[in-house]
Amino acid sequence: MYVSLSRLRVDASEAPRLVEAFRRRAHLVDDADGFVDLEVWQSDRDAGEIVMVSRWRDRDAFRAYMRSEEHRVSHDRIPADLDAAIRLDRLEHLHTYDVVAR
Amino acid sequence: MYVSLSRLRVDASEAPRLVEAFRRRAHLVDDADGFVDLEVWQSDRDAGEIVMVSRWRDRDAFRAYMRSEEHRVSHDRIPADLDAAIRLDRLEHLHTYDVVAR
Repeated sequence: MYVSLSRLRVDASEAPRLVEAFRRRAHLVDDADGFVDLEVWQSDRDAGEIVMVSRWRDRDAFRAYMRSEEHRVSHDRIPADLDAAIRLDRLEHLHTYDVVAR
Repeated sequence: MYVSLSRLRVDASEAPRLVEAFRRRAHLVDDADGFVDLEVWQSDRDAGEIVMVSRWRDRDAFRAYMRSEEHRVSHDRIPADLDAAIRLDRLEHLHTYDVVAR
């Protein structure tokens, strides 16, 4: 199994909007080949730190989705001002992992 | 649900030993009250970056386990030289999160 982790940073005041946007996500990814699940985490010490974690069958499934129309449409649904708030404060790029033990 | 994430850094040459240690873990945590699951992730770009992620019913369950004898025993099973290799190169402390969307 393969994991993609994106750590997003926004002002704490923007965090509720970002969390709400994730809760209303279009779920287009849910039908992607090899998709396992997705969770959104919010730091309990720093409300402006939001982590999006998705799990995939393997790296190829993740990469295929990232190149897909569904991914583009999902991203385009993010309101422009919220997207800008995320981007400007983004600290880290994407991290990817293999699940090696349980 | 509550998530604990620890990012460990070791020399890439030590990574296979660390992964193997996790695969042979005692599974003492599995019976802890409120424990959901545990995964170990290895970066596919940087073999020396290992992430341990555990999920819990809530923060109190996680904190109770961290104070428990089972946690102490689990940690004491790590070979001393491997533990030292982890500690010396540790970049980040523990991160904890609430699961806020799926």
